[in-house]
Amino acid sequence: MNTKATLLVCGQILTLDQSNTVIEDGAVAIAGDTIVEVGERAAMLGKYPGAEQLVQPHGLVMPGLVNSHTHAAMACFRGLADDLPLMTWLTEYIFPVEGNLDAEMVYHSSLLSMAEMIKSGTTSFCDMYLFAKEVARATADSGMRGWLGEVLYDFPSPNYGAPENGIVYLEELMAQYRNHPLISITVDPHAVYTCSPDLLKRLKTVAEKHGAAYVIHLSETRDEVEGCRAKYGHTPVMHLDALGILDSQVVADHCVVLTEPEIDLLAQRGVKVAHCPESNMKLASGVAPIPELLAAGVTVGLGTDGAASNNDVDMFGEMDTAAKLHKVHRLDPTVMSAETTLRMATLGGAKLLGAESLIGSLEVGKKADLIVLDMNKPHLTPMYNIPSHLVYAATGADVAHSVINGRVVMRDRKLLTMDEDAVLARLREIGAHISGLVRLGRR
Amino acid sequence: MNTKATLLVCGQILTLDQSNTVIEDGAVAIAGDTIVEVGERAAMLGKYPGAEQLVQPHGLVMPGLVNSHTHAAMACFRGLADDLPLMTWLTEYIFPVEGNLDAEMVYHSSLLSMAEMIKSGTTSFCDMYLFAKEVARATADSGMRGWLGEVLYDFPSPNYGAPENGIVYLEELMAQYRNHPLISITVDPHAVYTCSPDLLKRLKTVAEKHGAAYVIHLSETRDEVEGCRAKYGHTPVMHLDALGILDSQVVADHCVVLTEPEIDLLAQRGVKVAHCPESNMKLASGVAPIPELLAAGVTVGLGTDGAASNNDVDMFGEMDTAAKLHKVHRLDPTVMSAETTLRMATLGGAKLLGAESLIGSLEVGKKADLIVLDMNKPHLTPMYNIPSHLVYAATGADVAHSVINGRVVMRDRKLLTMDEDAVLARLREIGAHISGLVRLGRR
Ligand SMILES: [Zn+2]
Ligand SMILES: [Zn+2]
Repeated sequence: MNTKATLLVCGQILTLDQSNTVIEDGAVAIAGDTIVEVGERAAMLGKYPGAEQLVQPHGLVMPGLVNSHTHAAMACFRGLADDLPLMTWLTEYIFPVEGNLDAEMVYHSSLLSMAEMIKSGTTSFCDMYLFAKEVARATADSGMRGWLGEVLYDFPSPNYGAPENGIVYLEELMAQYRNHPLISITVDPHAVYTCSPDLLKRLKTVAEKHGAAYVIHLSETRDEVEGCRAKYGHTPVMHLDALGILDSQVVADHCVVLTEPEIDLLAQRGVKVAHCPESNMKLASGVAPIPELLAAGVTVGLGTDGAASNNDVDMFGEMDTAAKLHKVHRLDPTVMSAETTLRMATLGGAKLLGAESLIGSLEVGKKADLIVLDMNKPHLTPMYNIPSHLVYAATGADVAHSVINGRVVMRDRKLLTMDEDAVLARLREIGAHISGLVRLGRR
Repeated sequence: MNTKATLLVCGQILTLDQSNTVIEDGAVAIAGDTIVEVGERAAMLGKYPGAEQLVQPHGLVMPGLVNSHTHAAMACFRGLADDLPLMTWLTEYIFPVEGNLDAEMVYHSSLLSMAEMIKSGTTSFCDMYLFAKEVARATADSGMRGWLGEVLYDFPSPNYGAPENGIVYLEELMAQYRNHPLISITVDPHAVYTCSPDLLKRLKTVAEKHGAAYVIHLSETRDEVEGCRAKYGHTPVMHLDALGILDSQVVADHCVVLTEPEIDLLAQRGVKVAHCPESNMKLASGVAPIPELLAAGVTVGLGTDGAASNNDVDMFGEMDTAAKLHKVHRLDPTVMSAETTLRMATLGGAKLLGAESLIGSLEVGKKADLIVLDMNKPHLTPMYNIPSHLVYAATGADVAHSVINGRVVMRDRKLLTMDEDAVLARLREIGAHISGLVRLGRR
């Protein structure tokens, strides 16, 4: 007896399963939120006659990309200031303006970033920001799959005020999204330089209580490492380990500045790493030792970081840069192959989020998170090798359709879960407001 | 008395002239192939009532990008082989297949690359390849502005046969395109490791006779530098200088491996440099000292190199990578600002080609080579700084319209100078043929 499929997505199928199955003329059958069969198109059309069809001539059907680290709402700061030393950028631009953010601005700015993410092939993301209830609301409205949390630190927050209110806010968020089909709440200490050892440890207890990911910026810059050494006598990695925090719940963002023993330690503890090459390049932080982390067996996902330091959240561009950066950094064209990079942006991200049984490949029983690329383009023709084209030539604009949790959220590049023009119009107003704040702040 | 304009292109105008003029609601008036006025839209509409209008809501009108180094026809090899050591890539894949190329394959493959270039905002390019008459024919058919030449070396060519026929072929090409409105012929010795000193000098004489650019791959890799030292006792730069070749006619592609005195020498001789960061990254050649070259006063243009080593010819992506690569390479976020990078991709390329009086900015009297971007997109909203968005967030897919030499060559992303679907279909056949050759060659 067949499961009744609700949707058939047809094209060349790149499953990214363990044996790298590709079906030249295939279909993915979806029932509700779940993939129920992957096979030859002709057979599937006969088997599921009543299902809605999503057919793209010269279409490539593949798992949706997983953005392992972002700050969606920072889309409203994109291009506000660039090419500046980190501290000038933060103190003269980002901090003064962040202090004036409100819930509604965060909601709409998050929605903008989600529009961009969907339109560039991302179906899942891991977010850390202020006003996380608004980020969650935007996530639910966008139809995306999100792991997200409220950023926590020792200082007063524009959102929850005094630091002691942070955990209360986090607990409310946890309660609100328990068992949500698309949203998981994470515990997000900002970094070792903004969180006391006490806060870091208390948050670890919260994460353990909820079985939640513990997401933290870690070893992003030399300054961070030197500051941590000066203050605690340890590098950030050793500091967290001394506090008993490093384990497989931890998602460490960036990890640019690592020693060899630290790489081994991260592997041993099962820590996951989110690699954000474009942000690390733009802020001149350095090049994370990703080939070494992978060789040590560390799970690595790919992320864009926020649009304020990238300045886009296009994971196709991020894959291209990741593959090339490590080659030139090591003067070795064989490192970070297209296939390795593509896995990092799909199953790597899924594993990082503890969701490899749900997403990251097109397999029966997994959630139906998939995208369809229109490959009938000059820069994608002819086709010799699918991962090569996806990593080195495709861009987010090649994504024609997106399905998340079995729901078509974009068809023919039209977003079906939000009014894109209304979001753009609201963001123009928010942009004008922010410009005014910056002018005031710099006077 | 007004010049009669034939076309008015309306939107926000980024002129990239010397004073960086931006007109918020403006128009560029074109008569024939030439820009006759740049001004406020309202005034221009009144002044040129009969002109055809190209209006893009939320459109940004800017100079077309100049791709300073490419091998257009290599688009047919994109993704054929990647992530390999250079010599494996060349000897097992590229050389065996290049030996089997014919004129028709080069024509259609060039056309494919030109389709991609137009669709990603490039209006001018500098090309070096085999069967250059076919590249020229494709250029003329595409409506693009091209500087192009036949690659010359000491070995027999799949095109002209024995080396001595190369200069004959080049002279025919020169004769055929003398005074062509869009095509200029260049003199293209491949590199110091493939051309004898005698050939290099003879070709310099040819270039001088015709007042043509002398385009050569130079100091691309460490291997090239070491090989040249071993053979001639000089680095490639010093070798060319010893031969009396280095002067302002020379366009040197790549220039990855340079010493400080060589940078000064290139500046002194007026040599122009084409920077191809993505190809240099992907082939793991290294990072060219572009901030140092610019500081020394060298004219630098930006190029994609061929699609076989990039693997796209999207100059927007190339700008993004260029700006970020130099920041991380020097651990300094202030180098290669968005504005510097954008100039490199426009006026820098124009100067490199000796065409700064013709193209590279929107100014009265220049040729009408311009593109219109649709900025009504999530990743381009809100807008604080135009160069930042163009370099760090835009992609070629944001280009809606393209005008070259006063002719609309793309409107609403539809190419008007060629049948895109026919080109794609022919390239699928060529791809299948090439796959067969590679299988044979590797057996
Ligand atoms: Zn971050
Ligand atoms: Zn080249």
